[in-house]
Amino acid sequence: MKKVAIVMGSDSDLAVMAKAVKVLEGYEIPYEVHVYSAHRTPQQAADFAKNAKDNGFGVIIAGAGMAAALAGVLAANTTLPVIGVPLKSAVLEGTDALLATVMMPSGIPVATVAIDGSKNAAYLAAEILAVGDEALSEKIAEDRKAQSEAVLKKDAGISERLKEF
Amino acid sequence: MKKVAIVMGSDSDLAVMAKAVKVLEGYEIPYEVHVYSAHRTPQQAADFAKNAKDNGFGVIIAGAGMAAALAGVLAANTTLPVIGVPLKSAVLEGTDALLATVMMPSGIPVATVAIDGSKNAAYLAAEILAVGDEALSEKIAEDRKAQSEAVLKKDAGISERLKEF
Amino acid sequence: MKKVAIVMGSDSDLAVMAKAVKVLEGYEIPYEVHVYSAHRTPQQAADFAKNAKDNGFGVIIAGAGMAAALAGVLAANTTLPVIGVPLKSAVLEGTDALLATVMMPSGIPVATVAIDGSKNAAYLAAEILAVGDEALSEKIAEDRKAQSEAVLKKDAGISERLKEF
Amino acid sequence: MKKVAIVMGSDSDLAVMAKAVKVLEGYEIPYEVHVYSAHRTPQQAADFAKNAKDNGFGVIIAGAGMAAALAGVLAANTTLPVIGVPLKSAVLEGTDALLATVMMPSGIPVATVAIDGSKNAAYLAAEILAVGDEALSEKIAEDRKAQSEAVLKKDAGISERLKEF
Amino acid sequence: MKKVAIVMGSDSDLAVMAKAVKVLEGYEIPYEVHVYSAHRTPQQAADFAKNAKDNGFGVIIAGAGMAAALAGVLAANTTLPVIGVPLKSAVLEGTDALLATVMMPSGIPVATVAIDGSKNAAYLAAEILAVGDEALSEKIAEDRKAQSEAVLKKDAGISERLKEF
Amino acid sequence: MKKVAIVMGSDSDLAVMAKAVKVLEGYEIPYEVHVYSAHRTPQQAADFAKNAKDNGFGVIIAGAGMAAALAGVLAANTTLPVIGVPLKSAVLEGTDALLATVMMPSGIPVATVAIDGSKNAAYLAAEILAVGDEALSEKIAEDRKAQSEAVLKKDAGISERLKEF
Amino acid sequence: MKKVAIVMGSDSDLAVMAKAVKVLEGYEIPYEVHVYSAHRTPQQAADFAKNAKDNGFGVIIAGAGMAAALAGVLAANTTLPVIGVPLKSAVLEGTDALLATVMMPSGIPVATVAIDGSKNAAYLAAEILAVGDEALSEKIAEDRKAQSEAVLKKDAGISERLKEF
Amino acid sequence: MKKVAIVMGSDSDLAVMAKAVKVLEGYEIPYEVHVYSAHRTPQQAADFAKNAKDNGFGVIIAGAGMAAALAGVLAANTTLPVIGVPLKSAVLEGTDALLATVMMPSGIPVATVAIDGSKNAAYLAAEILAVGDEALSEKIAEDRKAQSEAVLKKDAGISERLKEF
Repeated sequence: MKKVAIVMGSDSDLAVMAKAVKVLEGYEIPYEVHVYSAHRTPQQAADFAKNAKDNGFGVIIAGAGMAAALAGVLAANTTLPVIGVPLKSAVLEGTDALLATVMMPSGIPVATVAIDGSKNAAYLAAEILAVGDEALSEKIAEDRKAQSEAVLKKDAGISERLKEF
Repeated sequence: MKKVAIVMGSDSDLAVMAKAVKVLEGYEIPYEVHVYSAHRTPQQAADFAKNAKDNGFGVIIAGAGMAAALAGVLAANTTLPVIGVPLKSAVLEGTDALLATVMMPSGIPVATVAIDGSKNAAYLAAEILAVGDEALSEKIAEDRKAQSEAVLKKDAGISERLKEF
Repeated sequence: MKKVAIVMGSDSDLAVMAKAVKVLEGYEIPYEVHVYSAHRTPQQAADFAKNAKDNGFGVIIAGAGMAAALAGVLAANTTLPVIGVPLKSAVLEGTDALLATVMMPSGIPVATVAIDGSKNAAYLAAEILAVGDEALSEKIAEDRKAQSEAVLKKDAGISERLKEF
Repeated sequence: MKKVAIVMGSDSDLAVMAKAVKVLEGYEIPYEVHVYSAHRTPQQAADFAKNAKDNGFGVIIAGAGMAAALAGVLAANTTLPVIGVPLKSAVLEGTDALLATVMMPSGIPVATVAIDGSKNAAYLAAEILAVGDEALSEKIAEDRKAQSEAVLKKDAGISERLKEF
Repeated sequence: MKKVAIVMGSDSDLAVMAKAVKVLEGYEIPYEVHVYSAHRTPQQAADFAKNAKDNGFGVIIAGAGMAAALAGVLAANTTLPVIGVPLKSAVLEGTDALLATVMMPSGIPVATVAIDGSKNAAYLAAEILAVGDEALSEKIAEDRKAQSEAVLKKDAGISERLKEF
Repeated sequence: MKKVAIVMGSDSDLAVMAKAVKVLEGYEIPYEVHVYSAHRTPQQAADFAKNAKDNGFGVIIAGAGMAAALAGVLAANTTLPVIGVPLKSAVLEGTDALLATVMMPSGIPVATVAIDGSKNAAYLAAEILAVGDEALSEKIAEDRKAQSEAVLKKDAGISERLKEF
Repeated sequence: MKKVAIVMGSDSDLAVMAKAVKVLEGYEIPYEVHVYSAHRTPQQAADFAKNAKDNGFGVIIAGAGMAAALAGVLAANTTLPVIGVPLKSAVLEGTDALLATVMMPSGIPVATVAIDGSKNAAYLAAEILAVGDEALSEKIAEDRKAQSEAVLKKDAGISERLKEF
Repeated sequence: MKKVAIVMGSDSDLAVMAKAVKVLEGYEIPYEVHVYSAHRTPQQAADFAKNAKDNGFGVIIAGAGMAAALAGVLAANTTLPVIGVPLKSAVLEGTDALLATVMMPSGIPVATVAIDGSKNAAYLAAEILAVGDEALSEKIAEDRKAQSEAVLKKDAGISERLKEF
């Protein structure tokens, strides 16, 4: 199976991006985690993306905050699907990272998920790999069913919990 | 090859979404175009998504404006990757559609592209299908090269064009 | 008397939505509380809305955060008035939920109240039921009078309280 | 049947608010149209709301732009459901009117619809009146069915229309 | 000397609005503090404004949050200058109150100060009264000089304080 | 009677600011119009403000766009009330000018009106001068009455005008 | 004298960026104009920046719209001062480009000017070169004086022009 | 070597602005720190800027919050490059300061960095001085290399750190 790369712009993003790792591990999808900054290590970021396909990656997840150029820079250097996770930082509630990640010019797409939405980045990576992998597709379908059942279980117990308020 | 579905919430979105079709045709990717509204035809939208995988689709592109629920509603009913195109409407510059498309809860991702970014939705769909299709991957790489060359040609002629101003 | 349904997208919304319950109880309006997610349990959410009228409901209140599709999805499946409560989540101050709830396309209205405005959702539900229920209408009018008097009592004591500062 | 009041803050809002009238006429719901400004005719606006119930109204629709206080001022003076339509004006894309209409304090709800969403205000008014009026409820249900069919007809013809692009 | 009225929409606004009182007391400007809500006590708010001039007031300061209609409602009922203080509440950082206060339609101005800018509301009230009161005008000028000197004293000591960092 | 100064940051603001002049002329308030830029003629702007009181001015109106520092710079150099008119320019819908005008630090207030709200700036100036001028106060009251009557006349004719739509 | 580079992400930005050229020509500052896209020609953009100092450049101006990564990407590859011009594109009024340009992480600054502020980018480039060039510094000072005089001339004629309105 | 001035609008900005000092000290760039307010000490702010060049300064850094006029006011009084640092204050996440700093009119540029981006202001000042100072240019290049290496070291250890989560 092709690997998923999780690249973050700074190691301070690790707490949020680690949630993506957990999801990938749940699906037994092989992955690598890297810290490359579009602005502080531009060459390494570009090189990683250029070689990603040959190195066995199928999807790249990129998490970055502020003027979040990372996902776009990776996407500019690969034809693999790149998923962007805009990260909330000290100001602006992540709006800066969202716009810097999603508003890509024609020709170089970034598949953007919610602000701090690292889990969904991993779910999306799994869905992409599952296009050609029926076994993985079934795992995702089961996971969805489990999600639904969890909600319905909450529904069943909600009147009881309401008494706490 | 798996098909790409292009679903729009209203036929008034056709002019923007037609650009995605052109990109898919350029890659000779089979596609279907549909008009289903998350709010006016919720059952048909859900049914389309539920059956999409069995009907030979590999990726779904969904374009919608305002409280753009379409991409999320389709994603809720399939494990295929769903790409959301937030569309600008009469007010708010597309901000409403962007947030309604991208801010999905954990478990149900939508791969969001730029406001009115229908072309990139198609490029992203192609990249996703290319994960398991080397021939398509090469076509995309050639397209990227052509894009670069077009920019460099513009660069070569820019001093001449500057005289117009 | 017709019942009011209070539906929330996640049980983590309970603390905010419980305030609506208190208001309904104050008016002795029968109610049911449910957890249905537009994205994780789309079928159950749709089914609940489709059957709501036949099940004795007169109004539906829907609280959801982020790409808050819940109110719209319920509204798409019923002709009962649906009141949407956009909920503030970890980022963006609830702006995402507000726009995703209020910017509905023509034909499928959602009666949107303030971000985290669950109490007003219940007051509005009461006002709607009171259109055909004079006794309830009088209760609301008395409540309004009590609200006014509470403000005027605060006004009477404000000079005293000012000394604390 | 109870009447619906359509109040606008300025006669320059008539083009947008007239769309609400058309919807009400389609449902044969009796209505009155008024121009009262929360800021230029505060007393008349308040008096209209105070007497609306006794004058046979069941719902009030209020359309206003900028610091749109109209819906809130009417709501403050009646226990009837008040529907607010935030109107786009020369600047800010209607954001000012949206926030001024929807962010009401606890106790005095305004049922807010989309910016310039006058048609949905009328649909919502119809839904509210239909809570106690089965015949009207059926008309709305038929209207919904017609809406769905219109979308499906568009869907059937979309491949043909795509050729124009 | 004419009095300044400080009106707040809720007694929960007292901590912020009390700062305006301190400024007025510093200038020995007579004042009254009131709690009137545009939405919960609309009649009392309107009556207060209507009678303010006859009751010896020269300026009205109004502080309110969310869909902050208070300043506009007071302004609609008096020809005295009304100063609006938009207050930050639980969501949206005060943006809602700012727009609801400042975006008044032609004919009914509100002199808006910064979000939570109650002190400046009082300084502005003093400046307005000082247009016809040379003694007050001199007090304000002295205050300004003191402000400047305080800044310059900070400037003189800043290199020393820099050592703390 | 004291004069009103209307200062604009650029002569391109004249079309908007001329509306303030019309209002002042309607009240027979003496005025002067100037073009001073906070950034291009900082000394002249400061000097004008410093001498404004001695030169017979009672109120200053300042209109500027973008990083609209003009009102604040004038306010920093006078104890007269300064009214700020944030002007919409080519981008951002006037949001930049609004925030740059209204968010003044404690001690130096600017009485901010709506974006492009030059007429209200003049009405506010009139209200300020009227605090000490009963004749002017009466003129404003009459103007308000005329405004009300104009609205009520529109109300009387609205059913007729509705037929146009 | 060191050269100024004007780089734009697309030749469609030429009309705005040409204004920067005019300013540089006015100061007789040598310049080069290029079209390099951070996303379509990432290698050429990086290479240009890496070699810019050795190629005789002293300052780089970068204009780009949407997820405007260009200025940041150039800054990441040079220690020359990089000036970013966020460009307004079809949606969002340039807010996306502004945030993507200005919110750079620590260590890699971009000197950001106003949305579409290409002229100021050139003025800033001139100021930077003038730090070590007294003759250029004097030219800028003269230009400032001319700017002031142009404003004062407008001021002198404003009463006359007011008659047009 | 020319000095860098760090001017802040209030001594409460010292904690953020002190980070700029550390960067300058790291480069052994001479500096002065001042507290001047555009609004409370307009004359001193203007005088400082007017004399800055003659007093041996090469660059001015200005940090201010809210209606942050400081950078623009300094820029209006000098031809030296002025770097603006918009500071986050109690409300609005620094958006007000960002727009008030960056949206300067043509002719008077401010080189704006990120909200609270005081470190980058110092790096930018160093880059500007380095245009004519090869030794400083080399120091910056070394610093960049060290930054890159720090990221790569984080990258090398990230798998280990991932175990904490």
